Amino acid sequence: MVSFTIQNVLIAASDDYATVDVQIVDGAIAAIAPNLPVIGTVIDGKNKLLLPGFFNAHTHSSEMWQRGIMSVLPLELWLAELYDFAPLDTEQVYLSALGTAVETLLSGGTSVVDHLVLIPGLELETIATATRAYREVGIRAFIAPLIQDESLSAGIPSGESARTHEPYHRSTAATLEIIEEAVRQFHRPDEGVNILVAPTGIQLCSNALFAGCIELSDRYNLCRHSHLLETRAQEKLAQEKYGCTAVEHLKRIGFLSDRTTLAHCVWLNDADIAILAETQSTVVHNPLSNLRLGSGIAPILKYRQAGVNVTFGCDGASSNDSQDLLEAIKMGSILHNITDSDYQHWITPRQAVEMASLGGAKGLNLADNLGSLSVGKQADLVLYDLTNLSLLPRTDPIGLLVLGRPNNVVDSVWVNGKQIVADGKVTTINVDELRQELFNRSQWETKRKSETVAQIEAHYRTVMGL
Amino acid sequence: MVSFTIQNVLIAASDDYATVDVQIVDGAIAAIAPNLPVIGTVIDGKNKLLLPGFFNAHTHSSEMWQRGIMSVLPLELWLAELYDFAPLDTEQVYLSALGTAVETLLSGGTSVVDHLVLIPGLELETIATATRAYREVGIRAFIAPLIQDESLSAGIPSGESARTHEPYHRSTAATLEIIEEAVRQFHRPDEGVNILVAPTGIQLCSNALFAGCIELSDRYNLCRHSHLLETRAQEKLAQEKYGCTAVEHLKRIGFLSDRTTLAHCVWLNDADIAILAETQSTVVHNPLSNLRLGSGIAPILKYRQAGVNVTFGCDGASSNDSQDLLEAIKMGSILHNITDSDYQHWITPRQAVEMASLGGAKGLNLADNLGSLSVGKQADLVLYDLTNLSLLPRTDPIGLLVLGRPNNVVDSVWVNGKQIVADGKVTTINVDELRQELFNRSQWETKRKSETVAQIEAHYRTVMGL
Repeated sequence: MVSFTIQNVLIAASDDYATVDVQIVDGAIAAIAPNLPVIGTVIDGKNKLLLPGFFNAHTHSSEMWQRGIMSVLPLELWLAELYDFAPLDTEQVYLSALGTAVETLLSGGTSVVDHLVLIPGLELETIATATRAYREVGIRAFIAPLIQDESLSAGIPSGESARTHEPYHRSTAATLEIIEEAVRQFHRPDEGVNILVAPTGIQLCSNALFAGCIELSDRYNLCRHSHLLETRAQEKLAQEKYGCTAVEHLKRIGFLSDRTTLAHCVWLNDADIAILAETQSTVVHNPLSNLRLGSGIAPILKYRQAGVNVTFGCDGASSNDSQDLLEAIKMGSILHNITDSDYQHWITPRQAVEMASLGGAKGLNLADNLGSLSVGKQADLVLYDLTNLSLLPRTDPIGLLVLGRPNNVVDSVWVNGKQIVADGKVTTINVDELRQELFNRSQWETKRKSETVAQIEAHYRTVMGL
Repeated sequence: MVSFTIQNVLIAASDDYATVDVQIVDGAIAAIAPNLPVIGTVIDGKNKLLLPGFFNAHTHSSEMWQRGIMSVLPLELWLAELYDFAPLDTEQVYLSALGTAVETLLSGGTSVVDHLVLIPGLELETIATATRAYREVGIRAFIAPLIQDESLSAGIPSGESARTHEPYHRSTAATLEIIEEAVRQFHRPDEGVNILVAPTGIQLCSNALFAGCIELSDRYNLCRHSHLLETRAQEKLAQEKYGCTAVEHLKRIGFLSDRTTLAHCVWLNDADIAILAETQSTVVHNPLSNLRLGSGIAPILKYRQAGVNVTFGCDGASSNDSQDLLEAIKMGSILHNITDSDYQHWITPRQAVEMASLGGAKGLNLADNLGSLSVGKQADLVLYDLTNLSLLPRTDPIGLLVLGRPNNVVDSVWVNGKQIVADGKVTTINVDELRQELFNRSQWETKRKSETVAQIEAHYRTVMGL
């Protein structure tokens, strides 16, 4: 495995910056100090900032195919439109995984948690395809196959206590078998590919499915991932379904843990927040989709005050409509200043960087190996070009990166010590070919009419009091 | 004046897109239709989208020098820090005006309203310098010299009815003389340079200053610009100062009109909103600084429902911390989905484009000449490259542009028919030299200690109940 030395690079040091050399040996950070002897290749770090790689801790890669075109709708109706127009094939899955990886890398991410939508009947092929794409790019992949065992209509509160829905097309047992087979075939943490158990959320999953996921997680040492209380409708639904909050229910069934990441967490009360802290669960904050879908503002400052670990995700590109992690980090920081008039609670740019890096590593049970520039940790690193116009004039580099609107500032990226971006270009795949493929397989169009939205909209408006 | 024809370009047409040719003759749009005869130079519009230029309808260009480094503070304390570290010279004013123009152009803007901070004692020189910079770049400039006649401490509520503050360093009459001289020297609407009367806001201006501005506006046919109710503190202050809301006061003294643009407008009540509608005033929405400074969410959906014209601004780069107009438009659209659960009120991408273009033109009393692709209007145009990865796969181009996170998508820009961006590069100035100058005149640093913040913070916390 290659070794290299980054010379004269700016790094964050306590409340200041330091100019140092960084030695990488066999994929790990071997030393950080000024004037180190050169080991391996020399990388010029002058006028550059080195940070640990960020985690894009929640996304759905194949949503890239519908970004920009989804109607302005709340989640429940938006989902209906999404699925009406999502007849994916594995080639599309491949290309959108590549695209998601590229946009994540070029905005400072070295890891992606892909809550991967599975093509019905081609579930393992879908997982294999995404695995192949992420391996080709070289990004660290956490593939979380999106599973459920209730049909989409079950996700909207009925407004009544009786709940009956058409059966889901696949049995709970068959779904769990797919996940176990995926673990056997693709779960290779040492090679940068991880499979997670990832029930969609309480809105579409039975207790049996959650139980099966917990069992697999314990048996194979897998991280757990799920949506949680993204919308007010889900809050209502949990009360209908369980007679308690979704968090109380998830605690009771044992899903919450220090390797559980929960996407969104918008509609939690103070008791719920205490449960997340107690169980050491991680919140994945997806500020852009929460705004785009009108879901609300997740109480991130409260989470931080309660000691809950928080990190950031882009969410799927159909509700964002991008995969730019720096944008998610910026919005996920400044959005909360309007929720608490005491500015002493506001998130600083350095805190945001820690949330995006170490926060992600913690949530995936990898804080000992990833998430900070520390000797002994694996070299998932990003080098930013501080001479870019969007980072000038020179002030506070981390402030510019987090609060500004950087364009093309990622110079180099290494994952596990392997360089996969150099001079601002992804070196492992041909991005121009990717662009051409995405172009050829799509066409410009305007708003479409979703039949499912037309069917369920009146019910949704009634239940939600609109 | 040059003429040209853009061939085979995508434009928005009612609820769809059309591929057309666009003829520009002598700086104006002469024809829009398929298969037009070529006039002048041919521009290839294939795989490109043509939109009217947007307005960066509120900014403070020289704040670029402190972007990225300002503490996370609410406006009143943030301003104190800003002014403690703002010893500008005219060379800095020149460079930051260039930088503001470049970032605005490369994010779809063809006009900038610069609420320009004046160097004390060098007021006319400051205005001359900004004028020179904008003329060199070729962006349409609306220079709104920032004037006040009360000292900074007057901008924080006293918590009492008695209000005394140290006098401002320049008399009201002297300030108005500067503006009148600036109008004589620099106000050249036909050449793309406009001077506005632009009192800072009710928080720092006497009635005499407002009256003088109104008089100049009427005499010289100048647009009017001001901050309005950006923070809760200003809402309190207006009650202390006038015994009524700031909007009621501004209406009473005659400042509101169909050529008045008002930045922020966060803390207005329903009666205030009705006044804005009645006076045909324009709201300039600055979503990013409102979040960054914790000012709040401006009630933009209410404005739209009341028939108030709304457009977007980046605000100064120290509170944003960028000048990317597409980012402001995206956030200024999706942010409001959490303020109204009825998604039928949410802003669509096409509406956002109209707000950013025609909305800006209306506010500056130029709706007959600018703000849409209409035959007879001046050619302030932006051509977007739809083959950029951030705008792929091909779905709805305007949806991708507004809701996505476009990078380097501006291919060409024309202002009054003159091309000033080609192949994604500004052609009128040397941007690499600009970068080098910004780099050389700055240094990386971390948080600074503001003495003024230390002096006023305790009072601020008391008055604001923190």
